[in-house]
Amino acid sequence: MNNNSSPLLQNREVQDIIALALAEDTAQNDISSKLTIPESLEAEATLTAKAEGILAGVDIFSTIFERMDKTLQVDILKRDGSWLSCGDKAATIHGNARSILAAERTAMNFICHLSGIATATALYVEAVKGTGVDIADTRKTMAGQRMLEKYAIICGGGKNHRFNLSSGILIKDNHIAVLRRSGLTLGQIVAKAVANNKLYLKIEVEVNTIEQAIEAAEAGADILLLDNMSVMDMKTVTGKLRGKVRLEASGGITIDNVRAVAETGVDIISIGALTHSARALDMSLEIE
Amino acid sequence: MNNNSSPLLQNREVQDIIALALAEDTAQNDISSKLTIPESLEAEATLTAKAEGILAGVDIFSTIFERMDKTLQVDILKRDGSWLSCGDKAATIHGNARSILAAERTAMNFICHLSGIATATALYVEAVKGTGVDIADTRKTMAGQRMLEKYAIICGGGKNHRFNLSSGILIKDNHIAVLRRSGLTLGQIVAKAVANNKLYLKIEVEVNTIEQAIEAAEAGADILLLDNMSVMDMKTVTGKLRGKVRLEASGGITIDNVRAVAETGVDIISIGALTHSARALDMSLEIE
Amino acid sequence: MNNNSSPLLQNREVQDIIALALAEDTAQNDISSKLTIPESLEAEATLTAKAEGILAGVDIFSTIFERMDKTLQVDILKRDGSWLSCGDKAATIHGNARSILAAERTAMNFICHLSGIATATALYVEAVKGTGVDIADTRKTMAGQRMLEKYAIICGGGKNHRFNLSSGILIKDNHIAVLRRSGLTLGQIVAKAVANNKLYLKIEVEVNTIEQAIEAAEAGADILLLDNMSVMDMKTVTGKLRGKVRLEASGGITIDNVRAVAETGVDIISIGALTHSARALDMSLEIE
Amino acid sequence: MNNNSSPLLQNREVQDIIALALAEDTAQNDISSKLTIPESLEAEATLTAKAEGILAGVDIFSTIFERMDKTLQVDILKRDGSWLSCGDKAATIHGNARSILAAERTAMNFICHLSGIATATALYVEAVKGTGVDIADTRKTMAGQRMLEKYAIICGGGKNHRFNLSSGILIKDNHIAVLRRSGLTLGQIVAKAVANNKLYLKIEVEVNTIEQAIEAAEAGADILLLDNMSVMDMKTVTGKLRGKVRLEASGGITIDNVRAVAETGVDIISIGALTHSARALDMSLEIE
Amino acid sequence: MNNNSSPLLQNREVQDIIALALAEDTAQNDISSKLTIPESLEAEATLTAKAEGILAGVDIFSTIFERMDKTLQVDILKRDGSWLSCGDKAATIHGNARSILAAERTAMNFICHLSGIATATALYVEAVKGTGVDIADTRKTMAGQRMLEKYAIICGGGKNHRFNLSSGILIKDNHIAVLRRSGLTLGQIVAKAVANNKLYLKIEVEVNTIEQAIEAAEAGADILLLDNMSVMDMKTVTGKLRGKVRLEASGGITIDNVRAVAETGVDIISIGALTHSARALDMSLEIE
Amino acid sequence: MNNNSSPLLQNREVQDIIALALAEDTAQNDISSKLTIPESLEAEATLTAKAEGILAGVDIFSTIFERMDKTLQVDILKRDGSWLSCGDKAATIHGNARSILAAERTAMNFICHLSGIATATALYVEAVKGTGVDIADTRKTMAGQRMLEKYAIICGGGKNHRFNLSSGILIKDNHIAVLRRSGLTLGQIVAKAVANNKLYLKIEVEVNTIEQAIEAAEAGADILLLDNMSVMDMKTVTGKLRGKVRLEASGGITIDNVRAVAETGVDIISIGALTHSARALDMSLEIE
Repeated sequence: MNNNSSPLLQNREVQDIIALALAEDTAQNDISSKLTIPESLEAEATLTAKAEGILAGVDIFSTIFERMDKTLQVDILKRDGSWLSCGDKAATIHGNARSILAAERTAMNFICHLSGIATATALYVEAVKGTGVDIADTRKTMAGQRMLEKYAIICGGGKNHRFNLSSGILIKDNHIAVLRRSGLTLGQIVAKAVANNKLYLKIEVEVNTIEQAIEAAEAGADILLLDNMSVMDMKTVTGKLRGKVRLEASGGITIDNVRAVAETGVDIISIGALTHSARALDMSLEIE
Repeated sequence: MNNNSSPLLQNREVQDIIALALAEDTAQNDISSKLTIPESLEAEATLTAKAEGILAGVDIFSTIFERMDKTLQVDILKRDGSWLSCGDKAATIHGNARSILAAERTAMNFICHLSGIATATALYVEAVKGTGVDIADTRKTMAGQRMLEKYAIICGGGKNHRFNLSSGILIKDNHIAVLRRSGLTLGQIVAKAVANNKLYLKIEVEVNTIEQAIEAAEAGADILLLDNMSVMDMKTVTGKLRGKVRLEASGGITIDNVRAVAETGVDIISIGALTHSARALDMSLEIE
Repeated sequence: MNNNSSPLLQNREVQDIIALALAEDTAQNDISSKLTIPESLEAEATLTAKAEGILAGVDIFSTIFERMDKTLQVDILKRDGSWLSCGDKAATIHGNARSILAAERTAMNFICHLSGIATATALYVEAVKGTGVDIADTRKTMAGQRMLEKYAIICGGGKNHRFNLSSGILIKDNHIAVLRRSGLTLGQIVAKAVANNKLYLKIEVEVNTIEQAIEAAEAGADILLLDNMSVMDMKTVTGKLRGKVRLEASGGITIDNVRAVAETGVDIISIGALTHSARALDMSLEIE
Repeated sequence: MNNNSSPLLQNREVQDIIALALAEDTAQNDISSKLTIPESLEAEATLTAKAEGILAGVDIFSTIFERMDKTLQVDILKRDGSWLSCGDKAATIHGNARSILAAERTAMNFICHLSGIATATALYVEAVKGTGVDIADTRKTMAGQRMLEKYAIICGGGKNHRFNLSSGILIKDNHIAVLRRSGLTLGQIVAKAVANNKLYLKIEVEVNTIEQAIEAAEAGADILLLDNMSVMDMKTVTGKLRGKVRLEASGGITIDNVRAVAETGVDIISIGALTHSARALDMSLEIE
Repeated sequence: MNNNSSPLLQNREVQDIIALALAEDTAQNDISSKLTIPESLEAEATLTAKAEGILAGVDIFSTIFERMDKTLQVDILKRDGSWLSCGDKAATIHGNARSILAAERTAMNFICHLSGIATATALYVEAVKGTGVDIADTRKTMAGQRMLEKYAIICGGGKNHRFNLSSGILIKDNHIAVLRRSGLTLGQIVAKAVANNKLYLKIEVEVNTIEQAIEAAEAGADILLLDNMSVMDMKTVTGKLRGKVRLEASGGITIDNVRAVAETGVDIISIGALTHSARALDMSLEIE
Repeated sequence: MNNNSSPLLQNREVQDIIALALAEDTAQNDISSKLTIPESLEAEATLTAKAEGILAGVDIFSTIFERMDKTLQVDILKRDGSWLSCGDKAATIHGNARSILAAERTAMNFICHLSGIATATALYVEAVKGTGVDIADTRKTMAGQRMLEKYAIICGGGKNHRFNLSSGILIKDNHIAVLRRSGLTLGQIVAKAVANNKLYLKIEVEVNTIEQAIEAAEAGADILLLDNMSVMDMKTVTGKLRGKVRLEASGGITIDNVRAVAETGVDIISIGALTHSARALDMSLEIE
């Protein structure tokens, strides 16, 4: 199975972050292994789940071992997006023992982090099951891992919001705050943006109150980001605007309140904590 | 204040991760701001804590705005390592509004993540106060952020373990597992490493049982990593070996049991979750 | 005037192409100047138009001289977007003669190319004056100069279409050809895309006939790209669909037929030749 | 056929420009294809000429698809330098449909541009056929594509002038203007350069008049660049100097006057427009 | 034999220096070969020793030819660390003649330099044979070749001292000089370092006199670097401290006095000239 | 004094090798200084010659300290090319003590190596004084330091031969060996090269015998490289060809025989050992 042909892995930033990770761990100068392991000794290692969750990043995991030493043989047993029970085996690596040990930490750091994100995403997706609401990510990602983390969100059943500042229009609170000081109303700000809009992009506007929501919608916004609004207020907004504009809830969402938010009738719920505060999934690499 | 002269910021991997982060967010092509904010409008923004914790990364934060637009003026109000109460202001940025908004997310992603690590570290350090035990990090870090995260650990009062595979010798469970298949005992493995040892490095050995601890110490190990051992067993080990070798506890440490572990008499406690599962500190950038 | 603070110049790809251009000309090893010009001789040079057109790229021009030798003093006399008559002076450079001569060709190659694009754009914009139709670019750009060329289009009064494959949805002829072989109709293809659509992006569909235009619009397309259609057919399409979807004409547009196309009632006309076949604007660097 | 072994493709600047081109188009995140094309669908595409001309860059074209996805199978049907009639097929690509569509624009941008240069070169070469005069390029190339464009010139039957500032000595008008202000005559400038000359390089001098041509030749120039001289004046120069120094014509050369210039007896004609104002050759990638 | 799988060759700095070396020689644009050698001509070349010594770098040598042109076939006849007599053949290359000639100089520059280092090391190792003393390198290496040169030291039978500033603690004369100006004694400086010491590193201290050696040892230094001390003084130091601390001699060591130094009873002798003043081993690449 | 404006330092390969050198020494993570030196302590250091020789690289030296920490103040007391007596001071650095110590080794490695090359060059230049013969370098340089070493050669009074494979034509023994196997004579090889020659380059041919020298000269070579010929044979060649072609001697040249070679009447003597086997000049950085 040739994992290197995955388009995600060809991405410039993904290639850069993999190279950075191997470099910062000086994986090519593992002095502990040099001191103890004979140069040509072979070993077999297994990637095993120590907790249950969703697998994400097994191709990156595999690529890191292959970059370390192209003679290593990685066999992938579970595909990204699979549910792992504790003890499930996701991949095996066979080959030079020093090479396996040198790349272990770097590969594990990626896969435990990405699987942690996928697992958290799946929990939120499960919590809103049946409501038809999508769970989405934000741009609150770990530096250099944006594309990988957004991929992990997909593995967990979520959706991707904007990739970056050039791939979508979101007029946020700070845009509005800056422009208000010039004396513009929210409606005027939105109307001007609609008039100057790029050909191929919708316009999303962040709002905090019912009044702002209505004002932005009337000015032509395509999507509203309801930021840190109460469930009650969100219900009022969906009552007035559902079907006319798309409605996204964000801010203060937890696993405990996500269903209540979903049941207000919003279309999508985006959650920064999925990436900015993800807990690693506990996995280990075990020598046979 | 010229933050760019910080040696940390000159580090090749740190420069690379900052460049990657700005690139992946396409900060130089912020279409939302282009659509709404006049080109020469100025603004002032303030970095404000929305929760309490330890500040870490204010120089990186500042550097990112200056890389975005060297005419931006960043004033640092709190130094790294400061305790922030909710509402405290840590820095202000003054200058071109588009530039501030374009760099906002990238800068915030770094500082919230690093401050989250420093805050968690400080909680553990506080929990073992008076025992003389050090709290240390591991190599379970976010890809590309190793140096920054290890710096955040220092900000929180912790200590740094190995930076990478070439800066310390740690004979881990997987080294031992590989060599055992060749018929070597733990003592033989350690003794051989001691004999071949580099001039300037101590030898640390990971052990899981009291017997292994004694065997490794007798074979000449300088430091023992007591991995996932019970508090009871750790006490037995410290009773026999304290003062003869350095003792490090790791594995399964939480804020709830860290003091009990510290009181076993180990010298150091290392905790992967400080970095691999850090929660971001809640901070925001507010337009005046 | 500090040109380096321009966000465009901070873009990673822009920085890379400038570095590449200086490197491939080995500007730091100009053996002709070393052979003839004394090391500390100073000179003054003027960027002068030898033909009339629109200036674009004067900040890149300036940056290249400053990268070559930071003691060079560049004074910008005309801003990007200015109309230049033959003989007009756009900038002067004062300083070390060897440095000026070494960077001359690299700087001139950028500014003549970008000004050529801006000039061609302005001719098309002028040709459709009064119709309310926008002239836009495509992704048919010179390798590595995408961001710079799209900036030159703006200087000439045009609009930017998608920056790249992740910043807009355009279902092209080849997408449709691939899917038709699976037995799908155009309407089914479009309808499926609309259903799965990202939150924040509109859907544009390329069509070649009146029937396809209607089928795509009915299936929910937000924008239609009318590719290589006759003026007659475009009129039929605008008659039926204008105001319901946005309409973009492309393919086979020349300065001779652009007004006729504009008068069909389309909203936008995109032209690959603006970038893929641009003629350089004739400018020279003259020593005083 | 393994195209990656071509030395040209191993060139550092060529590798960089290919990487830049794929990165700026975000070819690894083609959201239109993700939205419409099933992940494992296969397709076959053909590179077809839509106008007649000379093919150049088929190896770069092939490399781009292979970088995108190494499982793609590219079959090259025509070699660089071949004459293409309208409708001729130059290459086929077989494999994953998403990968083909994602790399299409980047690959097409290179091959249409380079083939455009080769085609223009061939027209000039044809125009001077039988005179024994060489058609050559200049350093007026697109940023980052110097090596590729000089290769396209060869494909079209032209010759390469200097690659960069360190690969040949050309004392240009601006060198002379700088030195004249120090009171030196042209003859003195040339004579000094000859005396100090590098071991292995000839000396070329740019001149504008008959008198300058004679003065430079007498001072020891090996080659004269006759810049923007009239055909009449060039004839006078060749009458006096042909066979004694090499003679190169440049400036103001068009397809209409190139034969007249060639018949003056110069040895070589160099033309900046071959690269700085090349029109793309019309080619398309068609799904079978 | 796949040489590219060597971990050393995967090191980021090693990859960078190989790329730099090929780039600075413009190996992809060898105009002499283009002018004379037919494009498809094949040749066979042999790497032959012209003097006797130790081979080091044959994998880098091989990698350079393969990077130049992956169709070249390199056969390695001698492994690194082998003793070569004059006339011995170490490798053969078969394939495209232009490619072999273009990479020749770059590949030869590496292997002659590294083999020169290995040879010098072997002479020193031989000179101290039977004393049990190790010969080690320093950080006085050629820019960009640190990892390669330290590998060559191993090939010659030597040992590696610190790889870099983060992989070992050495309190040097300049650290001490800086701190003395603050009024600290050597003993105080060392004692403070011991107290603050990292978990996993020993502390080495540079001393110049017998008194300093004793003071540093008593303060807790693990290793002493006896810098430029006389053989007499070193004997005094070893008499007092041998077995209590490790002892390293450095400074002013030549092939003539190295045995006398070894016989003083030090544990290790480190020699900067092995790398900073290495003579290349005379080898040549001969066409069959 | 702003050293960064030197064109040499702007060279891409020079910037890369400086970055590589600092990175491989992990100069931003100097754990010895962190352990011992207070963070804000200042110091003053002086670059002092410990042996006599020619200074080369003081701008690179200065740049490295400034890259490490832009607040460091470097004062240059001697310019490159100056003769240093033992004890002479060439530069002082004032500023943060940790920063000075962290960059010390990297900066010293460059300046000692380059000054060693300049010094050796000056010895050869002195040895041939009065003969009018130039001493030149070769392409046998340290990887990544080609441009810097060629600059050091100039500092020592030498001349630069080709910079790389694209900046001069030299038909070497291996070109000739390859072509001879195709049945061509030396004269035929040279004559063909002359006929196909680039516009702006002379043709140099390597020869080993008097007969080859004459054959190559008659076939039109501009320069002959007399490789490893005896002084007697070189005299015969100069007697026949001096003034008709340029004559370069190379191979087996030492400080002992260089004058005899110069007196044969050759124009230039090129010596690989100047760079491939240079001894470092002994210099030290001393804390005041």
